[in-house]
Amino acid sequence: MAAITDVAVRYFQVPLDEVLVDAKHGAHTHFELITCTITDADGQSGTGYTYTGGKGGSAIVAMLQDDIAPFLMGQDSRRIDQLYDGMQWHVHYVARGGIASFAISAADIALWDLRGHAEGAPLWQMAGGTAADCRAYRGGIDLNFPLPKLLETISGYLEQGFDAVKIKVGQPTLAEDVARVRAVRELIGSDVTFMVDANYSMDVDGAIAAARAFAPYDITWFEEPIIPDDYMGYACIADATGMPLAMGENLHTEHEFGYALAQSKLSYIQPDASNCGGITGWLRVARMAAKAGIPVCSHGMQELHVSLVSAQPNPGWIEVHSFPIDRYTTHPLVLRNGRAVAPDLPGTGVAFNWDMLKQCCDRAA
Amino acid sequence: MAAITDVAVRYFQVPLDEVLVDAKHGAHTHFELITCTITDADGQSGTGYTYTGGKGGSAIVAMLQDDIAPFLMGQDSRRIDQLYDGMQWHVHYVARGGIASFAISAADIALWDLRGHAEGAPLWQMAGGTAADCRAYRGGIDLNFPLPKLLETISGYLEQGFDAVKIKVGQPTLAEDVARVRAVRELIGSDVTFMVDANYSMDVDGAIAAARAFAPYDITWFEEPIIPDDYMGYACIADATGMPLAMGENLHTEHEFGYALAQSKLSYIQPDASNCGGITGWLRVARMAAKAGIPVCSHGMQELHVSLVSAQPNPGWIEVHSFPIDRYTTHPLVLRNGRAVAPDLPGTGVAFNWDMLKQCCDRAA
Ligand SMILES: [Mg+2]
Ligand SMILES: [Mg+2]
Repeated sequence: MAAITDVAVRYFQVPLDEVLVDAKHGAHTHFELITCTITDADGQSGTGYTYTGGKGGSAIVAMLQDDIAPFLMGQDSRRIDQLYDGMQWHVHYVARGGIASFAISAADIALWDLRGHAEGAPLWQMAGGTAADCRAYRGGIDLNFPLPKLLETISGYLEQGFDAVKIKVGQPTLAEDVARVRAVRELIGSDVTFMVDANYSMDVDGAIAAARAFAPYDITWFEEPIIPDDYMGYACIADATGMPLAMGENLHTEHEFGYALAQSKLSYIQPDASNCGGITGWLRVARMAAKAGIPVCSHGMQELHVSLVSAQPNPGWIEVHSFPIDRYTTHPLVLRNGRAVAPDLPGTGVAFNWDMLKQCCDRAA
Repeated sequence: MAAITDVAVRYFQVPLDEVLVDAKHGAHTHFELITCTITDADGQSGTGYTYTGGKGGSAIVAMLQDDIAPFLMGQDSRRIDQLYDGMQWHVHYVARGGIASFAISAADIALWDLRGHAEGAPLWQMAGGTAADCRAYRGGIDLNFPLPKLLETISGYLEQGFDAVKIKVGQPTLAEDVARVRAVRELIGSDVTFMVDANYSMDVDGAIAAARAFAPYDITWFEEPIIPDDYMGYACIADATGMPLAMGENLHTEHEFGYALAQSKLSYIQPDASNCGGITGWLRVARMAAKAGIPVCSHGMQELHVSLVSAQPNPGWIEVHSFPIDRYTTHPLVLRNGRAVAPDLPGTGVAFNWDMLKQCCDRAA
């Protein structure tokens, strides 16, 4: 028994280097980073976190401070699974997804970080230990980039060592999307892995047309062609086109992932530990994906997901996201021969540079 | 165009007269009431609200103040449908259920109240106008009441004029539940409508056994036998037992209601305007229910739902809930010959007694 003695929550607005646009969430000028540091009576502590595209952060802070922290105080920090289920039930009436999933994620990641510190174990070992590195792709939020800038940006990714890239689709016309997809494929050649992401800006018929039009350009997956809630719609697109489909960044509960894996005929699943229940939630999804026979990928927070994806028997790719959280940590993501390398440090391996965060991003929540 | 000029949010912790217990949310000592008052440039204003069982309230306040209010300011107060969809998309990444559904509900109800004030129209007319009264049942949160107290409480409901009552089930053994169900049926006689509510404390097999054991006591519906996420599980129970099933208080999005109506073989649907997107969200569910050929009921907030259920062509019962929000309004719910009567006042007909709320329930959010 190591009773939790403190839960400290912090909120940062992190500015982006430039305005980033996708099909459904508009222009991003900054992202929100919410951290949660849990300390126990043994003097161990761990820090977890979550992030948003710019909205909902103060609600996450409020739930962590007013609902999750009071629940955790005095509980045994080492009983992570029970605390996870306990947090879910504690806020159940206002939860099952949404803000609660983000708040619980931050607390759960803190508990895993604390556990790793206490045991001297790195996350890739605690999470399964299959390997300490994995494939990675660079995911751009680039819907508003004119074509020359898009191509220049992709070239930059290749120079940084990436051998897999993803662009946004969802331009006003399919012809424009196809022109961009063709130009990128011509630029990167046939050896580089290439994905597209529509951020559910299409309907089923539009997605079928788009999948057919993208097919000649060797697309590894078509991400979120339609709204995540339409599980069967995904299956229609897969059946009609054979295009490999991916989603998961907008699924927040085990039930939602269960329906998607059972009904959507996905080729890849992309849980995000920042909004699907932290490391506990992410690992539950990874096991469901293994059972379903598909690789588990990730969305965002590359500095954390590198350990989770590497550790699985069914690893996909981690996304290296355009929100550079890792820039504000003491160990930004390491790429080696195009593969992402998990930190070999006790805990999650994600330690924030608080001075840097304070200097550029501090705001009262 | 009547531009929104102010969005004012208030938070209250409302004490309950006694501790109320259900199978899955533990003991309730108070409930949270969050109000949202919207004013426009024409000088019209309206107040909406939502409530929780005691957790999540400050997150709802934070989202209303920091995300929803900035979105609404300057927009046309009369374009309710567009504002509803706009609010959903504004917070989409952290939403699709959970806290966002509660926050959007409060704002949407405020917009309808404002519209009613501007048009001089009562809600039952704006919402469909089929009738101005509807059936009502008294729903107890009474799982912890010893049997004598349970029966005394039910007798009290009948004396107050109710001809329909609901009790909680989910005792440690089915035999105890059955004994309570039998005792209540014996007390109320064969003419009073009788429902039971398990708050998803059972699994499918347990619910099938319970449905069979309750069947001899003429149960109008068996509410939330299992978790709301298991749409197909509900259908299994309905197929195996023929027992009429009801749920909806824990469904927050149109998609969730769509799946429940398509897959769960429900006999009644029970949306709650405080957590399914306000009046706009509730009316969308009511239309889906009409298409599916089942009556629409409600959960909680009887003082508002009386107008919504009465107005429908497919009215079920409103629940008169154990959280007495209407006690803190200037027009508490009116029962006439066992039927609930919709207020014939412009707007929602729900005007808070702010002095009373301030005196007994005010807390900094
Ligand atoms: Mg994506
Ligand atoms: Mg109920």
